Amino acid sequence: MVSQKPNKPSSQIEKDVYYMQLAIELAEQGRYSTKPNPAVGCVLVKDGRIIGQGWHKKAGQPHAERMALADAKQLGNDAKIAGCTAYVTLEPCSHYGRTPPCADGLVEAQVARVVVAMQDPNPLVAGDGMQKLLKAGIEVEVGVLQQQAEQLNLGFAKRMSCKRPYVRLKTASSLDGRTALNNGQSKWITGALSRQQVHRLRAQSGALITGINTVLADDPSLTVRLEAKWLAEHHLDEILAQPLRVVLDSRLQIPADAKLLTEPGETLIFCTQTAFQDNAEKAAQLTAAGISVIALAATNAKQIDLAGVLDYLGQEKQINDVMVEAGATLAGKFIEQNLVDELHSFIAPCLLGNQAKALFNLPEMHRMDEKIEFTMLSCQNLENDLYCIFQPKPLAKLDK
Amino acid sequence: MVSQKPNKPSSQIEKDVYYMQLAIELAEQGRYSTKPNPAVGCVLVKDGRIIGQGWHKKAGQPHAERMALADAKQLGNDAKIAGCTAYVTLEPCSHYGRTPPCADGLVEAQVARVVVAMQDPNPLVAGDGMQKLLKAGIEVEVGVLQQQAEQLNLGFAKRMSCKRPYVRLKTASSLDGRTALNNGQSKWITGALSRQQVHRLRAQSGALITGINTVLADDPSLTVRLEAKWLAEHHLDEILAQPLRVVLDSRLQIPADAKLLTEPGETLIFCTQTAFQDNAEKAAQLTAAGISVIALAATNAKQIDLAGVLDYLGQEKQINDVMVEAGATLAGKFIEQNLVDELHSFIAPCLLGNQAKALFNLPEMHRMDEKIEFTMLSCQNLENDLYCIFQPKPLAKLDK
Repeated sequence: MVSQKPNKPSSQIEKDVYYMQLAIELAEQGRYSTKPNPAVGCVLVKDGRIIGQGWHKKAGQPHAERMALADAKQLGNDAKIAGCTAYVTLEPCSHYGRTPPCADGLVEAQVARVVVAMQDPNPLVAGDGMQKLLKAGIEVEVGVLQQQAEQLNLGFAKRMSCKRPYVRLKTASSLDGRTALNNGQSKWITGALSRQQVHRLRAQSGALITGINTVLADDPSLTVRLEAKWLAEHHLDEILAQPLRVVLDSRLQIPADAKLLTEPGETLIFCTQTAFQDNAEKAAQLTAAGISVIALAATNAKQIDLAGVLDYLGQEKQINDVMVEAGATLAGKFIEQNLVDELHSFIAPCLLGNQAKALFNLPEMHRMDEKIEFTMLSCQNLENDLYCIFQPKPLAKLDK
Repeated sequence: MVSQKPNKPSSQIEKDVYYMQLAIELAEQGRYSTKPNPAVGCVLVKDGRIIGQGWHKKAGQPHAERMALADAKQLGNDAKIAGCTAYVTLEPCSHYGRTPPCADGLVEAQVARVVVAMQDPNPLVAGDGMQKLLKAGIEVEVGVLQQQAEQLNLGFAKRMSCKRPYVRLKTASSLDGRTALNNGQSKWITGALSRQQVHRLRAQSGALITGINTVLADDPSLTVRLEAKWLAEHHLDEILAQPLRVVLDSRLQIPADAKLLTEPGETLIFCTQTAFQDNAEKAAQLTAAGISVIALAATNAKQIDLAGVLDYLGQEKQINDVMVEAGATLAGKFIEQNLVDELHSFIAPCLLGNQAKALFNLPEMHRMDEKIEFTMLSCQNLENDLYCIFQPKPLAKLDK
């Protein structure tokens, strides 16, 4: 990895950026596997040489800083650790979790300087790790490549700061904004590469949300299906867990033989409290079969409270990232209620015509300034399709 | 222009490509103004030096070859013309039109070698110009940068080979494939840069086609409106003509005060023969006001025969390029009848919802293999919008 880098850095700022970039590349390797923990990378540098590096692989396993220290020891660099600089993409933790605090580890190792890309996104603990380091006489620098580091852990940061997961809404449509024929057929609008990218997005997600209408119409598996080769290249062949499957099923209509109930991994069904009471036997059967059924208070429209679902997933299930894969009604509600952080739009170069199914069911708009606007974050070709990521603009008008 | 070029070419092939590239850049300057003639550029080279260059500006004015010969004389290079090489982006003409044949001009000038990018696209005359040159003992080479040269004159080539104009269908829609709110409001879905690009496309077009429903709903001017600065930069401030405005108005419903009837330039209305007879007085009034009203035999569905419209525009009006700017019904018919050469799709990053107006009205599809497919030719950002050009794939299923 080091050999791919441009010219060796000279000034201190250049050096900090250079090694932090390496730490970020290390962190990225954990992108699919660390959930609910953040992806973090760490590089240890002494006298202009890397003496150890590490990244967090999986919750319960050592954090990046511990991995880097262990790496240094394994490389015979024990004596060089004292006085070295540690580059870490996220503020070292200061609390006891499944592993001891990393800040303590760096203090014990007598690291001289710690360069941190971003603070802990949990506002209640942000800065504690750095305080611990400072108190031990370690020099601390924060904010090097902060934006890049934030991109690594959008979901973790959202959950820490808002107690809700980061929501990606995925759509696959024709050029004329249609997701299926009138008779429901939709296989396939987009190409194989687009569908593969959807599976990568699923692999990044802690939970996948769909609606009961999609289950009834398409009976999806809602699992990650990726090639063994790709999994091996991403060190995921043994550690990738299936994301939690979430069905929003206000009236508890789900058929007992729905495919997604039998797939490996966990399934969670949300219904309204009324439906739960009215279908107590069905709920009990599902629960007996290992499916969690969660009853939430209904909205005025007798529907599931979507914000409540997200709160539950963030607070009870430690979900950082959810992807919504739903039909026009549920997708429209997520948009309308301003619950979407990113819209992942796969657009195929084809037309299905006005009789085909719409992309978003939304209340009728009467003025053009009611249109729901986005900012494009990126756009690329996937074979013949376009794959664009949009970020909703703040829906000021909803506050009126 | 020469100074921007890469290293000086060495081999003959490199030289030919180098000078033809210059000729193509010259030709491009006529892109907006030569219609119904093709855009053509010419470079004269002797002993590794350019001795004259020219491009065709406007029908009735000298062709590129004559311009280049005149340029050489003006530069005092008269004596160098004999024995030079002429690079021309299109086969020199061999017939008398408004100006004498360019092939004759090159023969008279005693040019030694003529390098041609592409043959005359009219299959009936293709090769005649080159035959004339060969008979005069001139060395002729054809096909250098042929593809680039073809791109310059897609419309001219289509009219020559098919006796119909090249059809660009323009759409402006939201991400969810909607072109207006249910109440008809559509100002504006796309941004200012997209709308400017539409005016450039209009400026390239010999005719703009719209439907009566668009006229009744939006009362468009259907004119080219471009900044004086841009026009000056493109040498168009005095020579750009407004494209022919074409309204497809099967029942001759157009209001006498429709804006597009009073704009500078020519308007042409197509209706069915029945409507023409039933509205003889209105037709006479329109004709008296300088508006052409053309009656075409109706299709079985009592609608205007779109292929007939294109035939008329190609054969009677010498239109190379038309742009269709229409609502979902007419746009759908152009697509359905496989009459579109390019789809110019402006997509704004916003949602209008399922109650808003559809992009294409098409008959209901029952199987996914009935979807109408395109190949993407290009895609770019225009401010926040996407501007993509698509080419329809052959509609094999229509032949079933």
